[in-house]
Amino acid sequence: MTSDYATLSPEQSVTEAIAKLRREAPDKETIYYSYVVDLGRKLIGFLSLKDLILARPEKRVEEIMHRDLIFAHVTDDQEDAARKIAKYDLIALPVVNGNNVLVGIITHDDAIDIINQEHTEDMEKFMAIAGSHETGVYMRTSSWQHFKNRCVWLVLLAALGLISGYIVQSFEGLLLQFAILATFMPMLADTGGNTGSQSATLVVRALAVREISPRDILRVLWREFKVGLPLVLLLAVLAFGRVIFFAGSASRPEGFSLSLIGLAVGVALGIQVLTATLIGSLLPLAAAKAKLDPAVVASPALTTIVDITGLFIFFTTAKFFLGI
Amino acid sequence: MTSDYATLSPEQSVTEAIAKLRREAPDKETIYYSYVVDLGRKLIGFLSLKDLILARPEKRVEEIMHRDLIFAHVTDDQEDAARKIAKYDLIALPVVNGNNVLVGIITHDDAIDIINQEHTEDMEKFMAIAGSHETGVYMRTSSWQHFKNRCVWLVLLAALGLISGYIVQSFEGLLLQFAILATFMPMLADTGGNTGSQSATLVVRALAVREISPRDILRVLWREFKVGLPLVLLLAVLAFGRVIFFAGSASRPEGFSLSLIGLAVGVALGIQVLTATLIGSLLPLAAAKAKLDPAVVASPALTTIVDITGLFIFFTTAKFFLGI
Repeated sequence: MTSDYATLSPEQSVTEAIAKLRREAPDKETIYYSYVVDLGRKLIGFLSLKDLILARPEKRVEEIMHRDLIFAHVTDDQEDAARKIAKYDLIALPVVNGNNVLVGIITHDDAIDIINQEHTEDMEKFMAIAGSHETGVYMRTSSWQHFKNRCVWLVLLAALGLISGYIVQSFEGLLLQFAILATFMPMLADTGGNTGSQSATLVVRALAVREISPRDILRVLWREFKVGLPLVLLLAVLAFGRVIFFAGSASRPEGFSLSLIGLAVGVALGIQVLTATLIGSLLPLAAAKAKLDPAVVASPALTTIVDITGLFIFFTTAKFFLGI
Repeated sequence: MTSDYATLSPEQSVTEAIAKLRREAPDKETIYYSYVVDLGRKLIGFLSLKDLILARPEKRVEEIMHRDLIFAHVTDDQEDAARKIAKYDLIALPVVNGNNVLVGIITHDDAIDIINQEHTEDMEKFMAIAGSHETGVYMRTSSWQHFKNRCVWLVLLAALGLISGYIVQSFEGLLLQFAILATFMPMLADTGGNTGSQSATLVVRALAVREISPRDILRVLWREFKVGLPLVLLLAVLAFGRVIFFAGSASRPEGFSLSLIGLAVGVALGIQVLTATLIGSLLPLAAAKAKLDPAVVASPALTTIVDITGLFIFFTTAKFFLGI
């Protein structure tokens, strides 16, 4: 925010206003937008230099000024202010305090910087990188700082990953009997993580550009459900085919056909993909609802959570189908 | 790009120029920047309305115009043009063809749209979503279109995941003997994926804001190596501790101590984290070098690749340490 802008008073004539801008121009960042303030510096209107140049010279500022102002409050999030500049194609946005007193402006170039900054922040939070999220400082940040930014979430997620380990361990008997199931663990985890990350990305992005808000939760879940169903069918059939055609030599007890195992893997993957889709869209919305940044609960956190649900789904489904 | 801008000729006086802008202002999107062109419409200079208002009225345009122009070529990437507007805090950027003839301008609000658009595109490509990547159309896009955008990469990655399956299958004997190893597969895969994704995100973002280029490959690898080493130590020690403290009841043959298994898991995770860090930074740089979008080879593709290398590292290391 800068205080480097021109103000006009409502009683000035257009000629006087232009003369004032000409006097002040050498010191001002922009004279293309002027803000009209009353004696108490309350913001009451706005004029562009184009308006002034086109107006009849004897008109008074208050006769020609725009009273339907777009402005931001000092307490607003800077990203919201930047989005307003983008939405209304403004060169600058005035900022007022609680008493409507003009305290500064945010210019179009500030807005680009803010938006770039938020993009970097989103991407980095999305990938579980802590820290300050400045743009364009990758090479200048020290290795030690990079290490600190990255290790926090890696350690937290590895701790959360303990749960995956417990699940595998508790189904050890099943795995020893059907070693073939271990073959499908990576695919199940990856596909769940990928589907969930896709949903989370779309929802985080739609939240970021203010297309949706946490109130839309049911509409979003219904939408993801509709997209998830065909994905479930497609991926389940592929997983079934994979078992039938590529897993012939893996070890399994006598009397269990490949198609039964294929069915178990396919159904498990289907449930996993649908769950991942719903969790992937639900988590960012829940974070936004709790006034947290939606990006925080995205990809790596999501992958770890979806791994846990996925392994549980996988082994439970396998037990059910194999009747043990 | 718009053709809705004002041009001046070099011989005009400041008074004539202002009069011309005043005449044309009602029809022009912006009159704050004017472009000076010769008789063949070649771009030779630039003047802001502020320059004109401050200049002595009898001066000629060519006496006061700026000749050190910032401009874009019609063949330039629109993102590069937008980044120029951001870098030099411009209200508009002129676009010329191969003969230096002015063919249009890109305004500051176009730039914000382009930057937002590219960010949506980056995020979506990053998360393996194909399609048109328009901003703000999540709810308006049909479920069927969403399905088509998402399934392409999911299927490709699931196919690539066949390789993970083969690796697990080929170490089946080891797994049957040491079921305890299966317990660590999810953590190994997730931690590798998370570390690799962090590196990829930082490199993709640094490439996007033009902080680095593919030529910096050795500097980037060296940097990632320096960040990777302490991560390796930290995570390997944690993995070792995890085996010692949390895996007591998992099945293993007589005569193999938990500390030996912990050592194997810790070393495997260490190698995996370092490999993932280097692959994560290398892949986006390689893509940029090959004139592909770096975002395409990022997170899910990376996770799948790192899973494959990780499983191979895991089982090979385990075999080595357990002497079988």
